[in-house]
Amino acid sequence: MSVITDLKWRYATKRMNGIKIPSEKLENILEAIQLAPTSIGLQPFTVMVIENKELKAKIAVPIYNQPQITEGSHVLVFAAWTDISDLSIDKYLNQIAELRGVSLESLNGLRNMITGAVTGKNKEQLLEWNSRQAYIALGTGLLAAAEEEVDATPMEGFDADALDTVLGLKEKGLHSTVVMALGYRDAEKDHLSSAAKVRRHGKDLFVRFS
Amino acid sequence: MSVITDLKWRYATKRMNGIKIPSEKLENILEAIQLAPTSIGLQPFTVMVIENKELKAKIAVPIYNQPQITEGSHVLVFAAWTDISDLSIDKYLNQIAELRGVSLESLNGLRNMITGAVTGKNKEQLLEWNSRQAYIALGTGLLAAAEEEVDATPMEGFDADALDTVLGLKEKGLHSTVVMALGYRDAEKDHLSSAAKVRRHGKDLFVRFS
Repeated sequence: MSVITDLKWRYATKRMNGIKIPSEKLENILEAIQLAPTSIGLQPFTVMVIENKELKAKIAVPIYNQPQITEGSHVLVFAAWTDISDLSIDKYLNQIAELRGVSLESLNGLRNMITGAVTGKNKEQLLEWNSRQAYIALGTGLLAAAEEEVDATPMEGFDADALDTVLGLKEKGLHSTVVMALGYRDAEKDHLSSAAKVRRHGKDLFVRFS
Repeated sequence: MSVITDLKWRYATKRMNGIKIPSEKLENILEAIQLAPTSIGLQPFTVMVIENKELKAKIAVPIYNQPQITEGSHVLVFAAWTDISDLSIDKYLNQIAELRGVSLESLNGLRNMITGAVTGKNKEQLLEWNSRQAYIALGTGLLAAAEEEVDATPMEGFDADALDTVLGLKEKGLHSTVVMALGYRDAEKDHLSSAAKVRRHGKDLFVRFS
């Protein structure tokens, strides 16, 4: 099963060697992220795709100078929407109507479901809901990278407000949620590249009701 | 790229046909969930794997009687840990020491990192952190199911407290976070089985800094 093989191959790479990812591989990883499922299909996040060397040096500071940022080829910053506007709901429903050849009126039930889900949450809960969806896309992107034999590091250790400032996210209604560095492992410098993978035993992780 | 093919094949299945998943496929999906990355590798969630017909009927109620629960073959309930105990940290570090043949003392830096991450969060933030990790595993499990040509439905629409009660989760320090039904689509009853997939355009989802 290639998902399992890919999951065993990948690891949270700590040191990268500076080599660029071919653009075809990058586009495949991004397409997988784009296709990742999210609640009600809203995809309430935006992904900054950063290749620019100067910008990577700038964002490295709020990411506590972890070496993957500058040693990696690309850095993806998953930024959750701080709100879900009526405008974005309209845009989504219009897209469904167009792609599926149905009337907007036939989507009123879906519109009510979305509006109910959004208005039933306070600002913090909404941001959290949106952030969780980004984590599904993160997991999908990590697998896609592994399939392309591109190394990747999921990163939560950063000053999100400071990162927002560097990228101008706040004024766009975005908040940085999780970061994924992409590149190639530097096996010599990264002692974890050969370390055994540690996972909870199945009998602990799963409780079975047969 | 098989990840992209699998993502295009899958959809949030609304109606299933009651046919059982072969156990080999189920075990592969569970192994993928087990191998999914999580922050600092803690895997702070437990997954209820429910095949039992009577129990499925019981949990269907707090899941608002969505048909996938009883029409599906298995239901996975991802339950986030409500706390990360010293005991579970010890267990994790002992496992690393054993698997990688290193001393516990050499893991003191990692221990401090984990303890810092845990104690820096209040109860709600910790639950949320743990829940996000479950979403990475959810995304991984959805892809693994697709690779096995098993249909799956990620579900957030349920009364989490009531579901906790049915499954006795609260007293185990668990809180139901997200549900995944597994089975096979009933294409005749499920009009979404042939619907076009709707995703945000790449130019909206991604902001590129080249």
